[in-house]
Amino acid sequence: MKTDEDFMRFAIKEAEKALEIDEVPIGAIVVCDGEIIGKGYNLKERDSDPTAHAEIIALKEAARKLKTWHLDNCDLYVTIEPCPMCAGAIVQARIRKLVFGAYDSKAGAVGSLYNIVEDERLNHQVSELKGGVLAAECRKLVQDFFKKLRNN
Amino acid sequence: MKTDEDFMRFAIKEAEKALEIDEVPIGAIVVCDGEIIGKGYNLKERDSDPTAHAEIIALKEAARKLKTWHLDNCDLYVTIEPCPMCAGAIVQARIRKLVFGAYDSKAGAVGSLYNIVEDERLNHQVSELKGGVLAAECRKLVQDFFKKLRNN
Repeated sequence: MKTDEDFMRFAIKEAEKALEIDEVPIGAIVVCDGEIIGKGYNLKERDSDPTAHAEIIALKEAARKLKTWHLDNCDLYVTIEPCPMCAGAIVQARIRKLVFGAYDSKAGAVGSLYNIVEDERLNHQVSELKGGVLAAECRKLVQDFFKKLRNN
Repeated sequence: MKTDEDFMRFAIKEAEKALEIDEVPIGAIVVCDGEIIGKGYNLKERDSDPTAHAEIIALKEAARKLKTWHLDNCDLYVTIEPCPMCAGAIVQARIRKLVFGAYDSKAGAVGSLYNIVEDERLNHQVSELKGGVLAAECRKLVQDFFKKLRNN
């Protein structure tokens, strides 16, 4: 049985793929019955797509595989706290459990600026929420990326 | 020179296309220099895609056409107040002006439950925001859809 940390390492692997092509290194996976059915990393620049965040890509892949947008039995793991768009997408997809790595004090919508995935006014809330899993590792990837960018 | 009402009528036309295939009738367009460069309507059921809202589809098409995710000079028109996911996507795309039809008291994130597109803590805010344009017409489309659904 895999732990949340185990699954987060898969999300970190996705983030590392973004790094290789100079995208902000954020990665996500969707897990259903212990199996990874969606993976994604940030592709905003490469795809010229404002919505191409790791979470959105992973959610879309999972939905394609299950042939439904209802991902009620699915869990999402992402290396950085989701932004409002991605937190909203998690609600749209009816994700069961959300696990994220580092908090994002500037744009995070799952505790930092908002808490969209637990807002009882919306028609869905996640059943389980865990932030801070392998946070240092997840944060370091992004910090190193921006440090390198500033030095170039 | 087209008015906001003129452009909203194009968004309504998109909503009507959703109606024809039994999707929730919400439509959106993206306008750049007076020209429509992105169009979309809700395709969540048909595409089994939790992110396939009108706004997301229109934003993606506009970005594909302009070959960039920076839609700084673009305006978005949508028949219903955007949800958190779509409001977040509008911020991600750096949309200039947002015009919507009917308010959505249950899930609206542009005045009703949140105001994500004018949140100064995020790294972008729309320069202009107008809600309630042709609101009665936009609302009626959705209300009639759900009324019919309940009667079936």
